[in-house]
Amino acid sequence: MKKITIRSQKRNEAIDITPNIRKYLDEKRVNSGIITVFSPHTTAAITVNENTDPNVRYDLINHLNHLVPAESAFTHVEGNSDAHIKTSLFSPAQTLIVENGQIQLGTWQGIYLMEFDGPRTREVWLQFTSG
Amino acid sequence: MKKITIRSQKRNEAIDITPNIRKYLDEKRVNSGIITVFSPHTTAAITVNENTDPNVRYDLINHLNHLVPAESAFTHVEGNSDAHIKTSLFSPAQTLIVENGQIQLGTWQGIYLMEFDGPRTREVWLQFTSG
Amino acid sequence: MKKITIRSQKRNEAIDITPNIRKYLDEKRVNSGIITVFSPHTTAAITVNENTDPNVRYDLINHLNHLVPAESAFTHVEGNSDAHIKTSLFSPAQTLIVENGQIQLGTWQGIYLMEFDGPRTREVWLQFTSG
Repeated sequence: MKKITIRSQKRNEAIDITPNIRKYLDEKRVNSGIITVFSPHTTAAITVNENTDPNVRYDLINHLNHLVPAESAFTHVEGNSDAHIKTSLFSPAQTLIVENGQIQLGTWQGIYLMEFDGPRTREVWLQFTSG
Repeated sequence: MKKITIRSQKRNEAIDITPNIRKYLDEKRVNSGIITVFSPHTTAAITVNENTDPNVRYDLINHLNHLVPAESAFTHVEGNSDAHIKTSLFSPAQTLIVENGQIQLGTWQGIYLMEFDGPRTREVWLQFTSG
Repeated sequence: MKKITIRSQKRNEAIDITPNIRKYLDEKRVNSGIITVFSPHTTAAITVNENTDPNVRYDLINHLNHLVPAESAFTHVEGNSDAHIKTSLFSPAQTLIVENGQIQLGTWQGIYLMEFDGPRTREVWLQFTSG
C-alpha cells in the first residue's frame, strides 16, 4: 500500500489527485488490474468527476452544501456532522481500472479527493491489484 | 478490459446492464474473483438496485430530480450540472463479487447504468480480477 | 466468498461490522490485497464512517431521513422507496485495502451496514482478492 499526502486549502474543496495516482502506477511499473483509492478520513471522500470546467466542481460543492448545510441542527458537538454525511454520500473509496500501467478514465474524468472539513493535511491510500 | 456500448433513450434513465455483465463473464470463462464496472462518463453512474418493480426505478429517478433539480442556479454553462452531481452521489463505479463464473447478486438486485444526461450512446468498462 | 449474518433492530440503523470483517480475515489467514464488502439487499448499504461518537451516526441517519423522507409521494406500493434511494446514495458495496492480514482503516473509521428498512435479518458478503 502507498500513502500519499495532500494539503487542502479550504473547508470544502475538490482536489485533483489524478497526477499522484499516475505517478504511483509509473513508479510501481504495474501492468493491468485495478487500483483502490481510499480516504482514511471520515470527513473527506473520493470521487471521479469533470476535469475541465472548474464551474462543475463549484456547482458540485455548492449544491452539496445546499443539501447538507453546515448549520443544520446536528447533535455531534464537533460541529462537522455535515462533513461526515457528505463523505458517505460521495463514498470514502473508489476502485478503478488499470490497463498497461495506465489508469483508465474517460476524456473528461479526473479523480478527486473531496475535502469537506479543511483546510487540513490529508492522506490518500492506494493499493494496486494485478488482473 | 472490455468495453460495452449502451444506448439510452431518456434524459434520466436506469438501464439494466446485468445481462451484459453476465455475457462478458460467460465469454471470458472466469472462475472466482471480483468485477469492476466503470462508467467513463461524468454524467452517468453505476449502481445496484431493485430489478422487479419498475416503480422503484421511477421513484429513484424522481426523488433524485427533486434533490438535484436541473433548473437549479448553476454556473456551468453546459446546463448539465445536475447530472454531474447525481453521478458523484451514485458513484461512477461498483466492484462486485464473482463466484464460479457467476456475478453474485441478491434475489432482487440488478446492476444499472444510471443515465443523467441522455439520450446518448454510452460505454461501460468491465475489468475482472481473479480472486 | 464468505456470507455473514447480521440482525438489525430498527428501521434505520448503522451497524458496525468491522469486527466481523477482521474475524473473516483472521480465519482466512490472508496476506495483502483488497476486500469487497457487499450488501445483497436493495434496502441496506455499506459505508465507512466515524466509529467513536454515536451522535455522528445519529446525525447521519437523521439527515438522510430529512433528504429522503419515508412519507414522500412514492409510487412503489411496498412503501419502502426511501430505503431503495438511500441504498444507492450510500452504495451497496465498498472495496477496502488489506495489508499483512489487517483491514486498513483510519483511526476514526469503522465499516457499517446501513439498515434502511429494518428490523430484519441481513447478510453481508465478503470476497478477499490477493494483491
